[in-house]
Amino acid sequence: MAMAEVGATAAGGSNRQALSDDDADGRALFLSWAEARGFSVSTDAVGNLFVRREGTDPDAAPVVLGSHLDTQPTGGRFDGVYGVLGGFEVLETIDDHGVSTTAPVEVAVWTNEEGSRFPLSMMGSAVWAGAVDLDVARALVDVDGITVGADLDRLGWAGDLPLGRTLTGYLELHIEQGPVLEASGSEIGVVTGVQGFRWLTVTITGDPVHAGPTPMDARHDPARPLAEVLDGLYRITAERGPWARATPAQFRSEPVSPNTVPSTIRFSVDIRHPDADVLDGMDRAFRDLLATSADRHGCQWEISVDNDSPPVVFDPGCVEAVEASAAATGRAHERIVSGAGHDACYVAGLVPAAMVFVPCRDGLSHNESESIQPAQAEVGAEVLLHAALALAHTSEDR
Amino acid sequence: MAMAEVGATAAGGSNRQALSDDDADGRALFLSWAEARGFSVSTDAVGNLFVRREGTDPDAAPVVLGSHLDTQPTGGRFDGVYGVLGGFEVLETIDDHGVSTTAPVEVAVWTNEEGSRFPLSMMGSAVWAGAVDLDVARALVDVDGITVGADLDRLGWAGDLPLGRTLTGYLELHIEQGPVLEASGSEIGVVTGVQGFRWLTVTITGDPVHAGPTPMDARHDPARPLAEVLDGLYRITAERGPWARATPAQFRSEPVSPNTVPSTIRFSVDIRHPDADVLDGMDRAFRDLLATSADRHGCQWEISVDNDSPPVVFDPGCVEAVEASAAATGRAHERIVSGAGHDACYVAGLVPAAMVFVPCRDGLSHNESESIQPAQAEVGAEVLLHAALALAHTSEDR
Repeated sequence: MAMAEVGATAAGGSNRQALSDDDADGRALFLSWAEARGFSVSTDAVGNLFVRREGTDPDAAPVVLGSHLDTQPTGGRFDGVYGVLGGFEVLETIDDHGVSTTAPVEVAVWTNEEGSRFPLSMMGSAVWAGAVDLDVARALVDVDGITVGADLDRLGWAGDLPLGRTLTGYLELHIEQGPVLEASGSEIGVVTGVQGFRWLTVTITGDPVHAGPTPMDARHDPARPLAEVLDGLYRITAERGPWARATPAQFRSEPVSPNTVPSTIRFSVDIRHPDADVLDGMDRAFRDLLATSADRHGCQWEISVDNDSPPVVFDPGCVEAVEASAAATGRAHERIVSGAGHDACYVAGLVPAAMVFVPCRDGLSHNESESIQPAQAEVGAEVLLHAALALAHTSEDR
Repeated sequence: MAMAEVGATAAGGSNRQALSDDDADGRALFLSWAEARGFSVSTDAVGNLFVRREGTDPDAAPVVLGSHLDTQPTGGRFDGVYGVLGGFEVLETIDDHGVSTTAPVEVAVWTNEEGSRFPLSMMGSAVWAGAVDLDVARALVDVDGITVGADLDRLGWAGDLPLGRTLTGYLELHIEQGPVLEASGSEIGVVTGVQGFRWLTVTITGDPVHAGPTPMDARHDPARPLAEVLDGLYRITAERGPWARATPAQFRSEPVSPNTVPSTIRFSVDIRHPDADVLDGMDRAFRDLLATSADRHGCQWEISVDNDSPPVVFDPGCVEAVEASAAATGRAHERIVSGAGHDACYVAGLVPAAMVFVPCRDGLSHNESESIQPAQAEVGAEVLLHAALALAHTSEDR
């Protein structure tokens, strides 16, 4: 709640956009807590921040717990923040109990996860994992023409810690941002991976004729294939089970005239599935349907792919560590696939990783009304604690 | 073709927007032809222009032939113009042959039929027929803040001829602006009336949730009712025969985000039918469908009526005069309902009226490529001639 006061919004949310003064104030608050504990602090070239508690084996790669402190412009109090502060709670708890871990345990704060101010989400973890070049990230520009590089330099965030270090494992605690756990009554979601998604822009082109004199059967009306492909999209999705998702959005048609058949109708389609082959199959089935339907109505069509993010399958060992922790602490849990992207997606490309979800009220996120109960927060941190200790090969010293 | 050079566009069309200098130049050209013939010329308070050839009975109300000379900004060479010049050709032919008519014959040029510069289509005939107050028309403003009244005064178009005079009949010759006659091979369309139309704005409201984590069955996605009501709209229309028309257009959804289920989808629906009861039935069936479908998917809906223009049924005597003329001149003809509005719609509210259609290439109109063949133009004018003579009770004097 103290962190939420940094960049607090009138509606009860937080506005700490990446690399802003508010984001810097949030980090400063976090660092004041870390330094009070005597944990060491380092940053890498893209400003990812790591708070470290040493382990007993000087050669062991660290176990990293983390997420992000930056928010959407009208963000909530928990998206990202909960994973950082939950990780820090784990670090404090280990320290409070004088637990020695073989591997060091670190808490990571990734830079610019939201991608709202600088248009690249999961930027810090993407650069860390080598999926995006540092120079590309530094050159990103906000609406005022300020670059990521300029702000990293201004804030002194760029440090010497190597990117893409070897880690024993990475665990990210996060609110679900969906209604599944709340509906099923699970206290913990054991996240096995992240859905692949593909963003398509669909354009259907017809003939802009007068709505009055033109008989219905003499038209090439793009709203006819629109009706058919929307209906088909939902059918294609339903056929592929509960993890298949399809979201048509951003509808626009031209011309802006009530009495002219549209010349073009354009809309986006977001399709998701945790299995890359199934996702490809959805895409193909949708294109086939569009081609057939547009052809039947004498319309042209075009699809562009604006974003193509393959599914992520988390490390079985990390997933089992989370599941075992939930079981050992007696928490109702279920395996779940994340519908949204997280820093763990990029990190998982390089090192073993998994995530822990807790339910959030009404599945609401990217919203100032985002809410979890203190007891729910505690359960998640507790499961994270025992999973982290399992990965870090603990031995209690008292 | 000479008239088309006034306000000619690079793409071969005409740009003579109502009450502009180009519109004034078009009228001046037309008046030079009228005055060369010695016909008398008058205007009424809204600038409607009447070119008159006297009849033999001083008490007889005139037969008026007419349409408009103003165009869309990227208008064609025939929409409106053909009806004025076709009417004038009739007047010249009567005069050339020394035909005496019992009733006077006049050619009308209605002011601002297009409604593109000043936003009220069929303005001149609407004021003439008392459907719109003169003051309302004079107060209409273009994008530069110029009023109809100011331009009427500037051009000296406002005259003393009474509005809403008694007429023996009104006949309007026009291009079809649709593909029906061309498809059936008819040379003449005997227009029995004008379709009623209603413009609806439909808003469907759902819940804007994240496209990733939210299961398909936990959504209130307005694109689901959209698919169903579009499909249903085409079915409702098909059930009501070839004169029923429906045009969904102007699709817009919010928010502009590919990975959020739309909160609202808005679109317009233009429905048309020549029978008022059938039009009402289409409207009701569509609303019922929308209510059921939105409810099934947990969405809200709203419909506003933006325009409601009742069907026009032309005077049987005038329609028969046109039909008899087409038959007498040996022209392939069929009865047809106009899908678009014309000055004749308002005039028919006050005096007996009908229209004559000729085919136009590909049914194209409101388009610089608008085209008819000289022979087609001649056929239409010939049918107009004999229908006008029938109404004006002719007696040849040589």
